[in-house]
Amino acid sequence: MRSWWGWGDLEDAVAGAERAALIGRVAELLPDAELADHEPPAIGDLNVGSPRIVPPAALAALCSDDVADRVGHARGKAFRDVVRNLLGEVGEVPGLVVRPRSERDVVDVLDWCADARIAVIPYGGGSSVVGGVEPRLDGAHVISLDLGLLAGVVEVDATARAARIQAGIYGPALEDRLRPNGLTLRHFPQSFEFSTLGGWLATRAGGHYATVLTHIDDLVESMRVVTPVGVSESLRLPGSGAGPSPDRMFLGSEGTLGVITEAWMRLQERPRWRAGASVLFDRYDDAVTATRGVAQSGLNPANCRLLDPMEALLNAGTDSPGGVLVLGFESADHPVEAALDRALELCRDYGGRPQPRSARNASDTWRTAFLRMPYQRDALAAHGMIVETFETACTWGAFPALREAVLSTAQGTMRALGTPGVVTCRFTHVYPDGPAPYFGVYAAGRWGSTVAQWDEIKTAVSQVLSDHGATITHHHAVGRDHRPWYDLQRPDPFASALRAVKSTLDPSAILNPGVLLDPSRQSPT
Amino acid sequence: MRSWWGWGDLEDAVAGAERAALIGRVAELLPDAELADHEPPAIGDLNVGSPRIVPPAALAALCSDDVADRVGHARGKAFRDVVRNLLGEVGEVPGLVVRPRSERDVVDVLDWCADARIAVIPYGGGSSVVGGVEPRLDGAHVISLDLGLLAGVVEVDATARAARIQAGIYGPALEDRLRPNGLTLRHFPQSFEFSTLGGWLATRAGGHYATVLTHIDDLVESMRVVTPVGVSESLRLPGSGAGPSPDRMFLGSEGTLGVITEAWMRLQERPRWRAGASVLFDRYDDAVTATRGVAQSGLNPANCRLLDPMEALLNAGTDSPGGVLVLGFESADHPVEAALDRALELCRDYGGRPQPRSARNASDTWRTAFLRMPYQRDALAAHGMIVETFETACTWGAFPALREAVLSTAQGTMRALGTPGVVTCRFTHVYPDGPAPYFGVYAAGRWGSTVAQWDEIKTAVSQVLSDHGATITHHHAVGRDHRPWYDLQRPDPFASALRAVKSTLDPSAILNPGVLLDPSRQSPT
Repeated sequence: MRSWWGWGDLEDAVAGAERAALIGRVAELLPDAELADHEPPAIGDLNVGSPRIVPPAALAALCSDDVADRVGHARGKAFRDVVRNLLGEVGEVPGLVVRPRSERDVVDVLDWCADARIAVIPYGGGSSVVGGVEPRLDGAHVISLDLGLLAGVVEVDATARAARIQAGIYGPALEDRLRPNGLTLRHFPQSFEFSTLGGWLATRAGGHYATVLTHIDDLVESMRVVTPVGVSESLRLPGSGAGPSPDRMFLGSEGTLGVITEAWMRLQERPRWRAGASVLFDRYDDAVTATRGVAQSGLNPANCRLLDPMEALLNAGTDSPGGVLVLGFESADHPVEAALDRALELCRDYGGRPQPRSARNASDTWRTAFLRMPYQRDALAAHGMIVETFETACTWGAFPALREAVLSTAQGTMRALGTPGVVTCRFTHVYPDGPAPYFGVYAAGRWGSTVAQWDEIKTAVSQVLSDHGATITHHHAVGRDHRPWYDLQRPDPFASALRAVKSTLDPSAILNPGVLLDPSRQSPT
Repeated sequence: MRSWWGWGDLEDAVAGAERAALIGRVAELLPDAELADHEPPAIGDLNVGSPRIVPPAALAALCSDDVADRVGHARGKAFRDVVRNLLGEVGEVPGLVVRPRSERDVVDVLDWCADARIAVIPYGGGSSVVGGVEPRLDGAHVISLDLGLLAGVVEVDATARAARIQAGIYGPALEDRLRPNGLTLRHFPQSFEFSTLGGWLATRAGGHYATVLTHIDDLVESMRVVTPVGVSESLRLPGSGAGPSPDRMFLGSEGTLGVITEAWMRLQERPRWRAGASVLFDRYDDAVTATRGVAQSGLNPANCRLLDPMEALLNAGTDSPGGVLVLGFESADHPVEAALDRALELCRDYGGRPQPRSARNASDTWRTAFLRMPYQRDALAAHGMIVETFETACTWGAFPALREAVLSTAQGTMRALGTPGVVTCRFTHVYPDGPAPYFGVYAAGRWGSTVAQWDEIKTAVSQVLSDHGATITHHHAVGRDHRPWYDLQRPDPFASALRAVKSTLDPSAILNPGVLLDPSRQSPT
């Protein structure tokens, strides 16, 4: 059963001996942490207002006013979401959860909401960590538009290796449906089990591949989007040069320009050859240089994850003064040992010491641990810890100073807050011109204040990203939480253009208000 | 010296024995062709009006009203452009050619033209084959904004392998400037010698690589664009997920939204390993299937050019009933023989017969012939031939019927016109989900009517592309000539969005009117 307050399924929560061991490890690392346990409140004890929205009769069957349903759709799954839930601070809750059964239903719901001036928050799996699905509308009428019933694989084109897929499908169901064809989307974000194709597309999710096909953008052949002024459908094209790309306008639009209902996605054959290894380094600078060498080699590993020493210690149990580079190659067509050998040679040039192991087992072990992390985060949050991540991308030249500044700013803020902790860094994706660093913060907070404490740390490090010319997000999206820095990052003429697009496609300004664009600068027409 | 009427430099025109041999081959292929020679008129004999535009004193030094200069900027280098020039039909000519020396000059020129309601056609190398630089404005005031003086490589970041490059630089100068750093953009369109970085970006040019990095889009790290309402500059980012991509809005905007002044481009190291081969097939269907296998293998050849039997005969001198697949692999980091071996194995599975040869020589031979083609086109055009190309992309499943329909429609139209000829097809780029077919038409026209005859063929085959769900252009851009089919191809909500962006960034509607958007639906604010 899905948790209303935290990550994933209730029965998979970290409990019992696993929980005791986790808290024990934290107590060792942060001896001053308080670590008392806090249980989530019962749904019935929450202070949730009654829905004040009455749907038209023809749409009533799609609408749920169930309190648990509404609370479960009220926010995403960031640390600050989970803790506010644990504290019973529900905040604004959508008046209704609406589940269209067809694209026609989506059109009808948007028409109704445009007429009635009801805000619409498109909802996939609700795994946003940036406030992307949370109403912050001063009590205005709002519905959550849950695409979960539009979850089919409608058509498979085995020749082109592509499939027409409805937006509300979750990761595991999608892969189950493709498996009989020997195909896979191979898009495995950490949220894989609890997020949907439509959510991935709307937020430009980052997936499985560390190189080349990093964002879901590149896996899109065509998209179908219901906007308040009509349905947009692009042609199925392997490539095109006819004007600016229509798909690229909707990719990353985060539910503000339309509701993605389906897409033709490019698929892969399941890999049959794999090779992988971990490489230890004595000096982190050398590890970064070696990783850059691999990223610029054209070898294109599927996995190229450099863990800094603290990340290696905490999340891979490896004590290495220069961190660990985890490399993985895969192919459905040909052996990849030679590519791995060459990558290891590049690593040795910078003092890397390869630790060969079975790639299959290593990747399985990592994947299990990776998917377990959000559950551990919830357990730690319930014990008064501050546990959160943030991520970015920058050029190779900018990275060393950026990491230094992030670490020292985060540590300095934690000291000032009296919340001792550690900061970790890994690369989730690498490009020839720079890495996508992903930072983790683990600090002993003060129960009841951990959200405010995290917000202070997050503001400080976001400013560092901005000051260093790094992006406010590589794949977590903008949502409501990143908007102040997105406003700084985005070129002004592009901001004006985006506002014009918004006014044109969503003239009543009903779609996900507050995301991407400052609603005070966007008046309904 | 640059030709005002045809391709490239006058001294490189096809003449003498080369010309005689070329015409001889055509006479053999098309015995009924007339093939009389026609010389271009003298510039002085052209009927060109006087410029009626008086620039502000501060900008006068940037402006040229020289007749040859203006006529040289009046149109691109399509077959229909060259023939109209040969016939002395100059049509509309820009009143002035304006050459900014700085970005500040670009801003000032746009301010002046917005105030004075003068249309501005941004001009790179003028190699458009889609009417992209041609004024068709019923005699309205228009200037050609030639970026040729903004041609520097401003900064090289060797660590990130990127460079900040001004938009007006031509291909050879760009490569010359990068060579001392051991770097290369590796973007080699057929127009390489006579087109510019800014033109490539504005038109989403297709380049050297047959796979993965096919369009220049993917080589862009950040862009700087002067719009009439301000300068847009994106951050230098290897990747980002912060909202829809700003760069992707300007890529393909073809001078309608702003003037690209510079970009940070991702570079490559020069390849040190190469391997290549040609593969003959007995059946074209098998050749297509084998090519698809290579495109889906993840081997990512730099070159993967399938020539159909007629293309092989005409442009590679190879008589093969199923055509020829030309494969090339390259790397700056590692040997590529194993990749070629595996690709050849895939070809053998479908009856392919590899003809090994030195990749270096094969690619050099091809490149020389490739760069020579437009000169041959001009010679043939002067002898009354219809010689033109068009290109598209579609899914693998759609390709066989599309090619069949293109060939039969083109042949049928040629028969109806009484212009006997041949149609060829090759793939310029291939993707896992489909090829980018490039068609050539060679027909014996009637001198004085060849433009009208070509227009009729082009209309017929464009309708075929549209009917088959293929793009009207994979890398030649939309310009003015493709707009009717682009209007059909583009989703309506996206068209509305693009018009809104245009109105916002170019409120006086001065930028390249008639390109991408129907100007009758775009009124100046």
